[in-house]
Amino acid sequence: MAGGIGSRFWPMSTVDCPKQFLDILGTGRTLIQMTLDRLLPVCPAENVWIVTSARYVEMVHEQLPDVPMSHILPEPAARNTAPCIAYACWKIRMHHPHANIVVTPSDALVLNTTEYARVINAALAKTADSDAIVTVGIKPSRPETGYGYIEVGASSEEICPVAAFKEKPDLETAQKYLAAGNYLWNAGIFVWNVDTITDAIRTHSPQIAGVMDEIAKDFYTERENATIEMLFPTCEKISIDYAVMEKAGNINTIPAEFGWSDLGTWGSLHANMSKDADGNAVSGVAELHECKGCVVHTSGLEKVVLEGLEDYIVAEKGGRLLVCRLSNEQKIKEFQK
Amino acid sequence: MAGGIGSRFWPMSTVDCPKQFLDILGTGRTLIQMTLDRLLPVCPAENVWIVTSARYVEMVHEQLPDVPMSHILPEPAARNTAPCIAYACWKIRMHHPHANIVVTPSDALVLNTTEYARVINAALAKTADSDAIVTVGIKPSRPETGYGYIEVGASSEEICPVAAFKEKPDLETAQKYLAAGNYLWNAGIFVWNVDTITDAIRTHSPQIAGVMDEIAKDFYTERENATIEMLFPTCEKISIDYAVMEKAGNINTIPAEFGWSDLGTWGSLHANMSKDADGNAVSGVAELHECKGCVVHTSGLEKVVLEGLEDYIVAEKGGRLLVCRLSNEQKIKEFQK
Repeated sequence: MAGGIGSRFWPMSTVDCPKQFLDILGTGRTLIQMTLDRLLPVCPAENVWIVTSARYVEMVHEQLPDVPMSHILPEPAARNTAPCIAYACWKIRMHHPHANIVVTPSDALVLNTTEYARVINAALAKTADSDAIVTVGIKPSRPETGYGYIEVGASSEEICPVAAFKEKPDLETAQKYLAAGNYLWNAGIFVWNVDTITDAIRTHSPQIAGVMDEIAKDFYTERENATIEMLFPTCEKISIDYAVMEKAGNINTIPAEFGWSDLGTWGSLHANMSKDADGNAVSGVAELHECKGCVVHTSGLEKVVLEGLEDYIVAEKGGRLLVCRLSNEQKIKEFQK
Repeated sequence: MAGGIGSRFWPMSTVDCPKQFLDILGTGRTLIQMTLDRLLPVCPAENVWIVTSARYVEMVHEQLPDVPMSHILPEPAARNTAPCIAYACWKIRMHHPHANIVVTPSDALVLNTTEYARVINAALAKTADSDAIVTVGIKPSRPETGYGYIEVGASSEEICPVAAFKEKPDLETAQKYLAAGNYLWNAGIFVWNVDTITDAIRTHSPQIAGVMDEIAKDFYTERENATIEMLFPTCEKISIDYAVMEKAGNINTIPAEFGWSDLGTWGSLHANMSKDADGNAVSGVAELHECKGCVVHTSGLEKVVLEGLEDYIVAEKGGRLLVCRLSNEQKIKEFQK
């Protein structure tokens, strides 16, 4: 899934080039490239499918040249994750009726890719010949209020039944979850075989299944694009969590610790970048003097001098500049207007 | 005098385009243009002479098209104000032996230009037919430690004898000067007739006079530029204050109040710009949120959002960006290296 528009990281990330297509950690690989890289021990590039906005198809192709162009599926309109996943799974099923599938966002970070591959392969082994749905649950390291949680049921296996999905909690609730020990972060990574997910969508989200059945008549024909453009936007706008996960049976989770971050905030970006002795994370040419705890990302300027900033975001790209306290990063969305 | 390289206002001002050539107050006129504008009631543009670095000759000509190109005198090397003034006065004297002259920096601010013209005309009336040297003394409004002071002798006239020139004082001394009431700021504006200043330089700075006599043999010939390039750099590097003012006789001052600022610091720039309700002075497109007391000057960026800054300089030009506390602006010179 690569359709995000990256508004939280403006102006580093913009609708013309959102976060998943940026090397935001300064590693030389973009987030979507790193996502593919870590999947290669699990699945060859020619078996990877990308659903993205029509405007990003070329960018995906440039960044992931090993993924077949025909596997880059354009969404004519953003309809949240359920229609996005249905589109890919309906299409895969037509040619690969026994496919075993991993669904993942393209803009998260995984530090321990060996453990990641082990976890994903364990989940795939479970779903290969069962109707289990496996969602990856990240062992929480802090009482984060920005993620949904998965309550884990008792099990002697690595893969456990899900007792309940929990919405983003307030701080007190998050602290309880952390103390209880049987709550995991929902990372939005799902594993299932293609029959399981298409059946679940048909059962719990028949409107979307109906649209997909209609579109599927034109899959792999010259009419496909026109049909997608006409019918895809008629899908209900709903997340896979609401549409399926909270309703379906045989929902499982695999507790995982592989250095995951959704990089959903400048704060999490700062936490995952290498920092100088004063806690500044700098990508670009900036020279810092008496600065502490800043995250700095510049790309278009030739020389940048920062003095006396503590816990600030400084981001510049394409003629746009933001200086904002890290503590107020939630305001960035409104600044772009 | 237009040879300054404007290093204190980096990156708004750079050696390629220093302060005097910038519209730093956002008025639509650069400082050198405003300097000429306020002199026009005193002296027509065709009688104005500019001494500047060779690299700025074209810029002066573009900004001041009414000043004859032949009146823009290039200094091949910076030698402080005494050689600069000598160069212009020696050259003026050859064709205008009775010239009455105002010398002024080109990068200061005057708010009350009517009073400025009155003061300058009063000084010119004094020097037209006497060997008086008149320096304009600004009535101090605060115990400024960044300027030299002029101690005024007793007089019943508007133009008073100078008792002494005082170096930049420490704060305690500046406070005494302010309390005493007979100390003025030295604004570097001088009035004299051409005989008076050339005689004074000959008497008190014979090395410079000797170089000028040699150069003068080639004034208004095709050899002038080559001779200037060869000989001007041999002049002693010294200010007119040290070379002449502190030694010559008949030194006078005219106490003046015409809203003067040398705009020598970001702080003084901030003080002279119009400000929003939170005391922010903004030139350019920047949008400020919860900012106070900032001075912001951007020119190359398309969109700038600043959040949560108090008493900062934010300056951007030509691919260079500075964010710096106003209280640390003295560090800016070293940041440019």
